[in-house]
Amino acid sequence: MAPQDRPSTALQLRSLVTSEGELQVSLTQVPVPTPAADEVLVRVEAAPINPSDLGLLFATADMSKAVQTGTKDDPRLTARVPEAALRSMAGRFGVSMPVGNEGAGVVVEAGSSPAAQTLLGKSVALLGGAMYSQYRCVPVEQCLVLPPGATPADGASCFVNPLTALGMVETLRREGHSALVHTAAASNLGQMLNRICAQDKISLVNIVRSPAQVALLRGMGATHVCDSSTPGFLHDLTEALTATGATLAFDAIGGGKLASQILTCMEAALLKKSTQYSRYGTATHKQVYVYGGLGVGPLELTRAYGMAWGVGGWLVMPFLQKIGPAATEKLKARIAAELKTTFASHYAGEVSLRRALDLESIAVYGKAATGHKYLINPARD
Amino acid sequence: MAPQDRPSTALQLRSLVTSEGELQVSLTQVPVPTPAADEVLVRVEAAPINPSDLGLLFATADMSKAVQTGTKDDPRLTARVPEAALRSMAGRFGVSMPVGNEGAGVVVEAGSSPAAQTLLGKSVALLGGAMYSQYRCVPVEQCLVLPPGATPADGASCFVNPLTALGMVETLRREGHSALVHTAAASNLGQMLNRICAQDKISLVNIVRSPAQVALLRGMGATHVCDSSTPGFLHDLTEALTATGATLAFDAIGGGKLASQILTCMEAALLKKSTQYSRYGTATHKQVYVYGGLGVGPLELTRAYGMAWGVGGWLVMPFLQKIGPAATEKLKARIAAELKTTFASHYAGEVSLRRALDLESIAVYGKAATGHKYLINPARD
Repeated sequence: MAPQDRPSTALQLRSLVTSEGELQVSLTQVPVPTPAADEVLVRVEAAPINPSDLGLLFATADMSKAVQTGTKDDPRLTARVPEAALRSMAGRFGVSMPVGNEGAGVVVEAGSSPAAQTLLGKSVALLGGAMYSQYRCVPVEQCLVLPPGATPADGASCFVNPLTALGMVETLRREGHSALVHTAAASNLGQMLNRICAQDKISLVNIVRSPAQVALLRGMGATHVCDSSTPGFLHDLTEALTATGATLAFDAIGGGKLASQILTCMEAALLKKSTQYSRYGTATHKQVYVYGGLGVGPLELTRAYGMAWGVGGWLVMPFLQKIGPAATEKLKARIAAELKTTFASHYAGEVSLRRALDLESIAVYGKAATGHKYLINPARD
Repeated sequence: MAPQDRPSTALQLRSLVTSEGELQVSLTQVPVPTPAADEVLVRVEAAPINPSDLGLLFATADMSKAVQTGTKDDPRLTARVPEAALRSMAGRFGVSMPVGNEGAGVVVEAGSSPAAQTLLGKSVALLGGAMYSQYRCVPVEQCLVLPPGATPADGASCFVNPLTALGMVETLRREGHSALVHTAAASNLGQMLNRICAQDKISLVNIVRSPAQVALLRGMGATHVCDSSTPGFLHDLTEALTATGATLAFDAIGGGKLASQILTCMEAALLKKSTQYSRYGTATHKQVYVYGGLGVGPLELTRAYGMAWGVGGWLVMPFLQKIGPAATEKLKARIAAELKTTFASHYAGEVSLRRALDLESIAVYGKAATGHKYLINPARD
């Protein structure tokens, strides 16, 4: 970037929660740093709004009741954080937090090292927070160079969804299961998982919530799709579990009865093949990992599936730490190689940083509705 | 046993569930077998009524509505199994099942092998089902010889509770936790666990349901006792978890909110020591194992404890299979050595096989109330 084009400060989206439970979302001017020898400065052009980003950004506040304050140049939003959710947020009280787990953009300035200089002008994907910023200065090793012809929008969701989907399949292999169940299966992540499982010849049972989502997944070749909005759901799910032998599920909902229903149907499928009665149920371990919280209300376990079961939280980053850097690099290499096929993401639209604070925009992108993922483009006005 | 004393048949308690959901409990005459070379015939004199036995015996039927049928010599009970519970029982429909996981008695006949002959006249403890029988013929290796002076009543609960309590402590060590939480902690098992943890210098947080149970455990020297019937329960529990650092719990209840409350308080205790906010909660894994089902209704997880948590079923037998025979033998040797101290059980009374089918007796022993465990003595009339 020519010195005369170089702004000294640039915009960054921030979220703050007070100890009284007020959420404040704002745009702040932050300094644009000069890259150190092994760093590059990236002009961010695309950062997805994932459910996990919404969690940090809006802190579970009901944004339909948010109030627009501040001025046109200094837009601000305030809203109430529910009392129950507030308890677990003490660690962020009063801290103005940047948002945006991942994104992509163009390297506009590079440090003196050869590794940094090589990236100048290239499109790169980034992981590491604060991506809802006009500029991000990061170490070279945090960049994934996009293949020729790939735009920042193509690479914006390079990490969270692809690594999560690959992490699920890796978990299946490491914990000795043979087939997989996935809920909210018509999501971007769910579609990706269908492509991975098809390639890796792993049977996948997709659970969706509408006939339109059934059609979408069938259209892309999915074999097992169960619609939880139909009266025959439990029967269909048991049939699919009998056919596939799946004993591992990844659940994005995390509330209500679905996780328990999956375990119940897994046990029913196992009982069909079992020859001996035990009042403790079958000896085969059945596992549901909750990796998201799309559902509201508590998760209800009826425990009608014996004693060999588990439910637990699952997050991709701790999982990658567990499998170590070498195994993680393998997954990343696969993502780069299949960026525009297996790991392609689709977006319903993009908003600028300013529009991201607009109540009308929030009503659309804040819903996190399946098939309606949005990008933030900080380079747009 | 002198041939003239040897009955050809003897009584055995049976439980049967029909596909229509009728529970039938009866006393049956079964042949008294002659021991093979490596077997012994044991006259059972004491078999505890554990919650797990009640589960098989009464199949979750409401026994306060049971009907006494049959005759004095052929007593029978019938009751209704709830529809929801019936689904998981298809494997036992129409099968007349013997009951009683463990027991103890005197060896009255022995096979020809020296190992069997050595046991003649000895008091032994047994594991292996069908203990609510007047006689049990078992392989020598299933017997645990009771120490001199120990009666069958002393050794009746040699396996299930002691191995379960030791299995909990072993799980803590193998999964890298440093302190333990236990619910229904005033039970026989809970008291045993207090003695083991005191000996092994492991901090134990006891959760009980009444001031009387607090007094009981404090009386035996317990440091951390939290009463879930008091308004300060969650505060007290968080304090105890902060003091001990416990991140593993064994829960006998399995229904309601308690498991979730334990996880919430564990996370609150961890957050006190944490310096960095993450909206995914602390990185420390928090685990609750459900090993019993004393509670009714679904288990409710509010998930207000980040993503590093797990809840799952836990059973002692699969656990012992996992750790293998050598590790299991070590646990058994400790039980035999500390039978009348660490692993002593207390009973509220004993009933004969006939009295076990008596509705008045069932009203007492069927409650599975803390501190009111009963023995069946099949040798009594």
